[in-house]
Amino acid sequence: MVGIDIVKVDRVGELYLKYKDKFLNKVFNEEEIKYLEKKNFRAQSIAGMYATKEAVSKALNTGIGQTSFKDIKIFHKNNSPYAQVDDNLFKISISHDGGFAISVALFESKLGDNLFKGTLGKREKDAHKGTYGKVGIIAGSKGMCGSAYLCSNSAFKTGSGLVYNIVSENILDIMSIKFIEPIVKSFEYDRDMLEFLKGLDAVAIGPGIGLTSSNENMLSEVLEIDKPMVVDADGLTLLSKNISLLKSRTPYTTVLTPHLGEFSRLIKKDILEIEEQREKLAVEFARECKCTLLLKGNNTIVTNGEDTYINNTGNPGMATAGSGDVLTGIVVSLLGRGFKTYRAASVGCYIHGLAGDYARDKVGEESMVASDILNNISSAIEQII
Amino acid sequence: MVGIDIVKVDRVGELYLKYKDKFLNKVFNEEEIKYLEKKNFRAQSIAGMYATKEAVSKALNTGIGQTSFKDIKIFHKNNSPYAQVDDNLFKISISHDGGFAISVALFESKLGDNLFKGTLGKREKDAHKGTYGKVGIIAGSKGMCGSAYLCSNSAFKTGSGLVYNIVSENILDIMSIKFIEPIVKSFEYDRDMLEFLKGLDAVAIGPGIGLTSSNENMLSEVLEIDKPMVVDADGLTLLSKNISLLKSRTPYTTVLTPHLGEFSRLIKKDILEIEEQREKLAVEFARECKCTLLLKGNNTIVTNGEDTYINNTGNPGMATAGSGDVLTGIVVSLLGRGFKTYRAASVGCYIHGLAGDYARDKVGEESMVASDILNNISSAIEQII
Amino acid sequence: MVGIDIVKVDRVGELYLKYKDKFLNKVFNEEEIKYLEKKNFRAQSIAGMYATKEAVSKALNTGIGQTSFKDIKIFHKNNSPYAQVDDNLFKISISHDGGFAISVALFESKLGDNLFKGTLGKREKDAHKGTYGKVGIIAGSKGMCGSAYLCSNSAFKTGSGLVYNIVSENILDIMSIKFIEPIVKSFEYDRDMLEFLKGLDAVAIGPGIGLTSSNENMLSEVLEIDKPMVVDADGLTLLSKNISLLKSRTPYTTVLTPHLGEFSRLIKKDILEIEEQREKLAVEFARECKCTLLLKGNNTIVTNGEDTYINNTGNPGMATAGSGDVLTGIVVSLLGRGFKTYRAASVGCYIHGLAGDYARDKVGEESMVASDILNNISSAIEQII
Amino acid sequence: MVGIDIVKVDRVGELYLKYKDKFLNKVFNEEEIKYLEKKNFRAQSIAGMYATKEAVSKALNTGIGQTSFKDIKIFHKNNSPYAQVDDNLFKISISHDGGFAISVALFESKLGDNLFKGTLGKREKDAHKGTYGKVGIIAGSKGMCGSAYLCSNSAFKTGSGLVYNIVSENILDIMSIKFIEPIVKSFEYDRDMLEFLKGLDAVAIGPGIGLTSSNENMLSEVLEIDKPMVVDADGLTLLSKNISLLKSRTPYTTVLTPHLGEFSRLIKKDILEIEEQREKLAVEFARECKCTLLLKGNNTIVTNGEDTYINNTGNPGMATAGSGDVLTGIVVSLLGRGFKTYRAASVGCYIHGLAGDYARDKVGEESMVASDILNNISSAIEQII
Repeated sequence: MVGIDIVKVDRVGELYLKYKDKFLNKVFNEEEIKYLEKKNFRAQSIAGMYATKEAVSKALNTGIGQTSFKDIKIFHKNNSPYAQVDDNLFKISISHDGGFAISVALFESKLGDNLFKGTLGKREKDAHKGTYGKVGIIAGSKGMCGSAYLCSNSAFKTGSGLVYNIVSENILDIMSIKFIEPIVKSFEYDRDMLEFLKGLDAVAIGPGIGLTSSNENMLSEVLEIDKPMVVDADGLTLLSKNISLLKSRTPYTTVLTPHLGEFSRLIKKDILEIEEQREKLAVEFARECKCTLLLKGNNTIVTNGEDTYINNTGNPGMATAGSGDVLTGIVVSLLGRGFKTYRAASVGCYIHGLAGDYARDKVGEESMVASDILNNISSAIEQII
Repeated sequence: MVGIDIVKVDRVGELYLKYKDKFLNKVFNEEEIKYLEKKNFRAQSIAGMYATKEAVSKALNTGIGQTSFKDIKIFHKNNSPYAQVDDNLFKISISHDGGFAISVALFESKLGDNLFKGTLGKREKDAHKGTYGKVGIIAGSKGMCGSAYLCSNSAFKTGSGLVYNIVSENILDIMSIKFIEPIVKSFEYDRDMLEFLKGLDAVAIGPGIGLTSSNENMLSEVLEIDKPMVVDADGLTLLSKNISLLKSRTPYTTVLTPHLGEFSRLIKKDILEIEEQREKLAVEFARECKCTLLLKGNNTIVTNGEDTYINNTGNPGMATAGSGDVLTGIVVSLLGRGFKTYRAASVGCYIHGLAGDYARDKVGEESMVASDILNNISSAIEQII
Repeated sequence: MVGIDIVKVDRVGELYLKYKDKFLNKVFNEEEIKYLEKKNFRAQSIAGMYATKEAVSKALNTGIGQTSFKDIKIFHKNNSPYAQVDDNLFKISISHDGGFAISVALFESKLGDNLFKGTLGKREKDAHKGTYGKVGIIAGSKGMCGSAYLCSNSAFKTGSGLVYNIVSENILDIMSIKFIEPIVKSFEYDRDMLEFLKGLDAVAIGPGIGLTSSNENMLSEVLEIDKPMVVDADGLTLLSKNISLLKSRTPYTTVLTPHLGEFSRLIKKDILEIEEQREKLAVEFARECKCTLLLKGNNTIVTNGEDTYINNTGNPGMATAGSGDVLTGIVVSLLGRGFKTYRAASVGCYIHGLAGDYARDKVGEESMVASDILNNISSAIEQII
Repeated sequence: MVGIDIVKVDRVGELYLKYKDKFLNKVFNEEEIKYLEKKNFRAQSIAGMYATKEAVSKALNTGIGQTSFKDIKIFHKNNSPYAQVDDNLFKISISHDGGFAISVALFESKLGDNLFKGTLGKREKDAHKGTYGKVGIIAGSKGMCGSAYLCSNSAFKTGSGLVYNIVSENILDIMSIKFIEPIVKSFEYDRDMLEFLKGLDAVAIGPGIGLTSSNENMLSEVLEIDKPMVVDADGLTLLSKNISLLKSRTPYTTVLTPHLGEFSRLIKKDILEIEEQREKLAVEFARECKCTLLLKGNNTIVTNGEDTYINNTGNPGMATAGSGDVLTGIVVSLLGRGFKTYRAASVGCYIHGLAGDYARDKVGEESMVASDILNNISSAIEQII
C-alpha cells in the first residue's frame, strides 16, 4: 500500500542527455512527456517522475518488470500529483533537493471505470430531509427480518433522507429493535397505508415478504400506485403469477431485479434456455413490459429494451444471502432522488458491485456477508460524486 | 493527509542573503517573521519553516500554487510547531542536520472557529454521576424508537452522567433492548413520574412521541415543571396548539428547536413568508415568548430575542432522519450541566454541526446517517474543551 | 510492526570483497545467496538484502542478536520482496541510490504452517448463493441464544451462501432480532422441517439446544437424514444415550466435536482414563462408529480411525464460552461446500485456532471472547486461499 | 504520536570529545551512560541515543525544553530499545550509517505504575472453560438491563470462561437478545437456582436489581452461600437494612463496592461526616464486618481492615452511569479465578481505572460512556500480565 523511492537527480539527468527521446519514450506516456516539456525537461522533474513510477510499483507489490513503467500513469489534478495503475489510484508526494528526488506513493482508492463519475454531484446547501427523497420499503417477515434491515439501511446510505419500512404487524417490534434511522410502519396498523405510500417519492417491494396470498393482494394494490418502484425477490415470484399487473403501470416507472431463477419464473422459460441468450431475452422482456430489467449475475445486465448496460463491478463473494436486498435499497434510493429507472438501475448495480469490491478488500470473498456490502456503500458512493 | 519535504539549508540561506525581506515577505506571515527574528534569521530555521510550508501543501494535496505560502500559518504551541490552513490543523515534525531540513506534516483535525474553545473546561477530579447533570428525555413511540435512542445516547456523549429515557409502556422493552447506558422509565408504569422529573436537572420532550391527545396532556403537565427544558419535533407541533403553555413558564428556561415547517406552525405563518425574514421573525418570537429559539437550517439561528448567534458548522449531509434528535440530546445535556438556554443552544448546534463535519470526513455527505453524527460527538467536543 | 534501516552500499561492498563467502554464509541463506548470484553479487543488491534483515529485526522488536540474520528469510513473490521470521510475514520496500540502500519492513500477517495453503481456492466467477453450500444449524434455546448466533454467523463467514438457523419457536423472535444474514425457522412452526433439511447440503445440531426429551426425539429424526452432519455440545450428550443412532448413519458422513467431558460420556470412560490415551481412544471410537471425531483440547485431535491430524493453531484464551459454537459453524460450512468429514474437521479446527490467534493479537488471551474468534475468521481464511 | 530525528554523527562526536562527562551528564541518565560505556562511548551510539531523545520529544509534542533530555529514559528490553517519559512508552527504531543516525519514536502505550505487573501471569496451555472461573451475576431489572449487560460482559473480558447472568424472568428474553456470550438464567424459572450458584466459583449481586422486598429475601438467601461474593449497588442498599447478613458470612469472603452514598447508608453516618475521615471509617468498617471494602471515588480506597490500597488509575470521565457495573464484573471475575477478596478488589479497581484511562485517550472524558470502559478492559489487562 506504500512505496518509497529515492533517485539521484544526476543519474537520471545523464540518462536523459545520453538517450533523449528514446529514454523518455521508454519510461513515460505522451501526457507525461508533455508535462515534462512544460518543465523544460529539467533533470529534477524527470527524476521525480521516475522515482514516482518506482515508488508506485513497490506500493503495488510488483516492482517494475511485472508492471511496466508505462502502465503507471502520472497525472496532476489541482496541481497535485496522482498515479494510476489499472483501477488503483495513488496519492504521490515528491520532494527534491540536495541532488535527490524522493517520492512516496500511498494507495488512495479503487477507481471505477469512471463511467458514473460525477453522477451524484454535490448536495444543495439548504437541503432538508425531503430533498433527496422519501422512500418506502415493503420488506421482511417472520424469520426473514434481516432482508428488511439490509434494504432500508442501504437506502439511507445511498442518500435518502427518510426511509419508511413497511412490515406486517407481527414483526413491527422486531424491526423497531433492529433499526435506528428507519421508521417502521405496519400495513394492518395503519389503514391509510396506501395513501401514505402515494406521498413518497419511490417504493420498493419484495425482499423477504414471503409468498402468502395476502401479499399477493398487497402487491397488486401497491403496483397501482403511480410512483417509481422496484420489485424484487418474493415480489417478483408473486408478480410472475400475474404479469399484467406490471404492464398496466405507467411505462418505464418500474425496475425488476431478478436473479436467473426469478427471471425464469417471470418469462416462463427454463434456466438453461435463458443462459444461452441472457441478454436477448432480457432486452425483449424489458421492451415488452416497458420496464427496466436488472438481471443479476456475473456481469449483471441492465436494460430498458432500448439501451443496455453490462456492469463490471462486483465479485463472486457477493453471492451471499442478503446481497440482493442491499441492491434493492440502493436502487430505490436513487429512484427516490429523481433518477429515471434505467439510470437508477445502472448506477445502482455499479455502486453495489463497487461496495462489494471494497468489502472484499477488507474481509475477503469467502468471509464477506451482506452487512459488509452495506457498510461499504459509503466508499463506493465517494467514487461517483 | 501526510506530506514530506526536504530542503537544502544552504539553498534557502542563499535565497535569504540575496533577497532578504523581499524573500521573507513573500513566504512568511508577520508572526512567522517575528519568530524567525528571535532565531536571528538562521538559514537552518528559515529552511525548516520553508520545508514545512511545502510539506503542508503536499499534505493538503494542493501544492504551493493553489495554496499560497502565506495561506499556511505556522505557529508554536507549548514549544511544538503546528500549521494551519483554513480550518485544517497539522502536526509538524522538523529535523535539521547534515545540511538538510526535513519536515513532515500530519493532518491532525478540523479546527472550529474557536468561538467556543474552552467552553467545557476540565472535569472536576471528584466528579460523581450527578456532577455534570441528570437529564430526562421524553422521546420515542411505536415504530419511532430510533429517535429516543439517538437523543438519549447523545446526551451521554455530551457529558451527562445519568440519562433517563421516559417512554410509553408499549416500548419499554424495546428501549431496554436498544440501550446500554440510559435507564428506561415509562409514564404509566410509574405514577410518580412528574415528581421524578422535578428531581432532575433538565428535561427534553418531543422526538418521535407522536401527536396523540394523551401526549398533548402530558406536554402541558411537563411544561409546568420549573426546570430547564428543550421542546422538539412532535413536542413543538403539540405546543403550537397552545402556545400559552410556553408563555407561562419561567422566562428563558425553555429551548425550542424547530425546523422551518415546525416554526411555521408555531407562528402561524407560511414557510415562504418566513424564508424572507427568517432572522427577524425568530428574534421577535423569542422575545415575545421569552424563550431561546434554535431555528434549524443551513446557518441555524439561535436567538433569545436579544442576542443572536448564526451557526457555521455542519453540512447538507445532516439533512437526514434522526439528525435533529441528536441535537436535542446535546442541548438538554448542556442544560443539565448548568448552561443557560441561549448558551446551551448556541454551543449545542455548534457541537452538532462539527460532529456532522467529522462524520462527513469519514463516510461522506450522501452516506451519512444520524448514528454517524452521534458517533462523532466525542471528536467535536474535544475541540471545545 | 515497522522497522527501517539505512546502509552505505560501499561499506557492505567492502565487507563482501574482504570476506566473500564467509560473509555471505554468515548473513544469508542458501536461497538468498542464489538470488544474489543472479544479481552478480552486486554490492547494491547485497546491501539491500542486508538492510532488510536489519529492518525486519527492528520491526520484530528484537534486533539482530536475539533473532539471527539467518532466521530472517527473504524471498520474492511476484517480483516483490517479502521477509519471514517464524510465522511472521513482512512486506519489504527497498530503495537504492546515491550510495545508500534503504529498507522498510512492514508487518503483514501471521503465516500458518501452510499445511492448508490453497485449500479453498478461488471462488467461481458465476457463483450464486447456493454454489458454496446451503446449511442448516439446529442450535440455541431460551437463555442460550448466543450459541446459535455464533454458530450460524461463523458458517456465513466461512463462505456459506445461505444459512438457516432452526430453533424452538419460543426463541424465534429473539433470534430474528439478533441476526442479520441467517434465516430463522422453527421446528414447530413448520411441520415440513425434516423435508426442508433434506434439501440442504449439510446440517449441524447441538449447540445450546438443551437436554430435553423432545430434543432427544428430534436428534434421532435428524440423524436419519442422509446428509453430512456435525453433532456438537448438547447434541453429543443426547447422542451418548443411544450411540446406535450414529452407527446406523452412512459411514463417514458425521463429525462429532466433543470436549473431554462429552467424549467421556460418549465412550463411557472417565476423564482421567481418557487423558492417558487420548489419541488411541479417539482413533478406536472413530473406527468403530465410522465417523470423524474432533476431540477438542490443547492440540485438538481429528481422526477418522485411519488418518489422524493433530492441530497446532489456537491458544488457551479460546477456553471461553461459545468458542466451540464457532468451531461447529466453521465445520458445517466446510461440509456444506463439499468437503469430506475428515477434511472439513481438520481444516475447520485449523481455521478456528488461527482465528483465535488473530483475536489474541488484538485483545489478548484473557479478554478474548467467542465473538472475537468469529470476527477473525476472515483473517484466518485468507491464509488458506 | 510519531517523532523523527536525524543527527550527524560527527557533530555529536565532537561535542563528546570537547565536553566529555559534562555533555553526557547533561543529556543522559546513569543507566544510559552505563549502556554507552559498554559501547565504548562510540560517537555513533551516542548520536543514536541523542537522536532518540529528540525524536521522543517531538512525538510528545513538546520538544526538548519543556521535556528535558533526562526526563526521557531510554532502556533496552530483549535487545530492543524503548523510551519512557512519565507513563508514556515509545518504541524506538534507530538506524546508523553514512555518517548519520536516524531515530524514529512511535507511541506504544500508557504504562501503569507497574504495581500489578505480572499479576495474571500466562494462561495454562490446557485451560478449559472452567479453569479461570465460572461466575454468577445477579443483576438487572425492567428498565435497568444495561447494568447486567455491562457487568456480565466485563467478567468475560477479565478472563472468566463462563458467566451466568441471573435475572428476574420478566427480562429473560431482553437479556437473551442483548447478550452473545453470557448465559441467562432466571430465578423463578429454575427453582434450583441456589443449588446452581453453589456450584460456581464466585457470585456478584446487586447492579440494577431494584429495591423490592423479594430482592431483599433473595439477597439474604444468596449471602448464605459460602462462596466469594461481591455486593454492589442496590444489593448494598438492601444489605444496609440488615448488616448482620454480612457478619454471618465466612470472614473475608465478601467484597462490598459502595460509592459514598451507599457507604453512608451502610454505616448510618452522613456523607459530610464520612468525607472528613474516609479512610479511617473504611478501615473500621472492614475490620468490624470482616470484609473487603472498596470505597469508590477519586482515589478509591480498598481495605480489609488491615491492609489498605489507594488506587491511582482512573479519571473523572468515569463518573457516568454503568461505570460501577463494569467494576463489579471485573472484581467477581478475579474472585472466580481464585484471588482473595482484598487482592481481587485492589487489582480490580486498578484495571477498571486503567481501562477508563484508555477510554479517555480515545473518546475524551466528556464523551466517555460505560461501554467505552468495558471495551478497553483488554488494553488494561495487557499491562498486568
